[in-house]
Amino acid sequence: MSIELIGWDIGGAHLKAVALNGAGEIVAVLQEPCPLWLGLDRLHDAMNRILNVFAPGPGCRHALTMTGELVDFFENREQGVLALVQATTQCCSQNSVRVFAGPDGFLDPMAITAESAPKIASANWLASALWVAANVRDALFVDIGSTTTDIAPICGHRVRTRGYTDFERMRYDELIYCGVVRTPAMALADRAPFEGEWVGIMAEHFATAADVYRLCGELPDYADQAPAADGGEKTVRGSARRLARLFGRDAESASLKQWRRAARFFRERQLAKLHSALDCQLSRGLMDDDAPLIGAGVGRFLVRELAGRLGFPYKDFSELFSMVTPQNDFYASDCAPAAAVACLAMREVGPT
Amino acid sequence: MSIELIGWDIGGAHLKAVALNGAGEIVAVLQEPCPLWLGLDRLHDAMNRILNVFAPGPGCRHALTMTGELVDFFENREQGVLALVQATTQCCSQNSVRVFAGPDGFLDPMAITAESAPKIASANWLASALWVAANVRDALFVDIGSTTTDIAPICGHRVRTRGYTDFERMRYDELIYCGVVRTPAMALADRAPFEGEWVGIMAEHFATAADVYRLCGELPDYADQAPAADGGEKTVRGSARRLARLFGRDAESASLKQWRRAARFFRERQLAKLHSALDCQLSRGLMDDDAPLIGAGVGRFLVRELAGRLGFPYKDFSELFSMVTPQNDFYASDCAPAAAVACLAMREVGPT
Repeated sequence: MSIELIGWDIGGAHLKAVALNGAGEIVAVLQEPCPLWLGLDRLHDAMNRILNVFAPGPGCRHALTMTGELVDFFENREQGVLALVQATTQCCSQNSVRVFAGPDGFLDPMAITAESAPKIASANWLASALWVAANVRDALFVDIGSTTTDIAPICGHRVRTRGYTDFERMRYDELIYCGVVRTPAMALADRAPFEGEWVGIMAEHFATAADVYRLCGELPDYADQAPAADGGEKTVRGSARRLARLFGRDAESASLKQWRRAARFFRERQLAKLHSALDCQLSRGLMDDDAPLIGAGVGRFLVRELAGRLGFPYKDFSELFSMVTPQNDFYASDCAPAAAVACLAMREVGPT
Repeated sequence: MSIELIGWDIGGAHLKAVALNGAGEIVAVLQEPCPLWLGLDRLHDAMNRILNVFAPGPGCRHALTMTGELVDFFENREQGVLALVQATTQCCSQNSVRVFAGPDGFLDPMAITAESAPKIASANWLASALWVAANVRDALFVDIGSTTTDIAPICGHRVRTRGYTDFERMRYDELIYCGVVRTPAMALADRAPFEGEWVGIMAEHFATAADVYRLCGELPDYADQAPAADGGEKTVRGSARRLARLFGRDAESASLKQWRRAARFFRERQLAKLHSALDCQLSRGLMDDDAPLIGAGVGRFLVRELAGRLGFPYKDFSELFSMVTPQNDFYASDCAPAAAVACLAMREVGPT
């Protein structure tokens, strides 16, 4: 595997990496669990695991984007950004690393100051959106990951979002805090139907979106790298047991069919939440009726469904890349910002 | 047209009639606007218009069901039931009329007392549900009409609803007060996205579901017999103007595309409302996963969509009847209770 450049996306819970060859083609995609709130050694471990698999030569370059600076291990975002950049340069030789700073392009780690931090913090969505904009004239980009959903309208090859920071993006419904793996089920509904009645739901971390989508038969195995809410088994039975607890019940007290139906209710609530956010974007009237929804993230099966509901064609983010080797489980779509930041960096410096 | 029996469904806003021949086959379906809250003469007019078209012979029998007793023209439901039965016997010879009283079967108008009224009042949904139960072992029956939606689970050829009166049925999410023509848009949402912002909606009778579905391109022309909210033209332009008023805007202030998008938002809110009600029914666990959703009413295009979302097969109510002549615009599905009450009455007495 001849690797010219690796794009890294350091999340709060996962580390994602996409490797390019000298022609700018994707040759490998990898994701490792990385519970960053437990400390920077988790990042070192995950990064080294990936570097061992990729085994890049000494000339390999690295492009970095992140959201991990928000975890409560860090005092604030600025400290987080600086610490994550430093940790990366400890694993990859410093002068091979460039850091994505949105409108300021790629920065040398040595040049990063406190002022750079707000542009670097949680800018990974912008890498993805810029890559879409470079390739597609009009589109609505939707990346549904394990934890969050990023939404970015692209119009005339320009990213037309209104927020930049997480706060601004949540204000404009461009960052929706729900995904298909880690989102606690209690954040999706506070009441649910069961046995024909509407029942209150326990606001306890008993079950997650992974349980919901496992019961619905839609969760890609490879996507589920986070521990289950109870630390227990990641099986249909385990998910039913966890979901049952939200209702104050045991799994054995009802049929699996009924727990699957309950899971579909939480799924529908999540779709409704995302649908509202997309409606808000679409109400700006920027997009043509035949512009696609472009789906990324391990939850992009929901983007396909939402496109149908909204009446737009669907296109997969992976179609915007060329890939030359058979993949492991992960596609470019699963690690969209890592793939995008790699390709943007390759283009900025030019292929060798 | 040899007509043996006519099934009548007297609603608050529409009069519906289905004619059977001696073999119990449907030979005609008709619906006439009938704003009953304006007085009983509206019912006489509508009924006579239909009788003129059907032109039944002197031996023709009549089976009656209703919801019209709830209009505020009547002091209470009992008075309404008695008045509607009497009005019917003034148009159709008295001893040819039988009135559907749910579990008590069909009553002779002469035998109807104050005690019968609660069984007769708003029992039209039960006629439809009983006909489904007679023909299909397990199903979820959903009749989305101009104004309301009826939901009835059928299990083991039995109707498994928990409510009987409108009040009880609303308590159990079996009667949902929304339909695809008359429902005021303000009852579907109090905020809506427009130009990228969430905007409050005027709680005025400015636009109805007919405007929503006309803008979405889904409203069957023949179904839209109620006047528009402003009494104006029933065109896409007229609907955009009415919807715009809800936002405090004029239609000209934005593109038709934007008003269509706003309409889709209201449509989605209605679907979400119905989806929740169906979730509640399904959470009883009565139905097999392969049991169909059976759709009726002029809004049954939404039942088909909801079946897809819920993961059940779809079946049309019209498939439960045999029809021998080409229809006008109306199908048995459009006037489900009238068709059902006709077939139930025919079966109770037996075909001649």
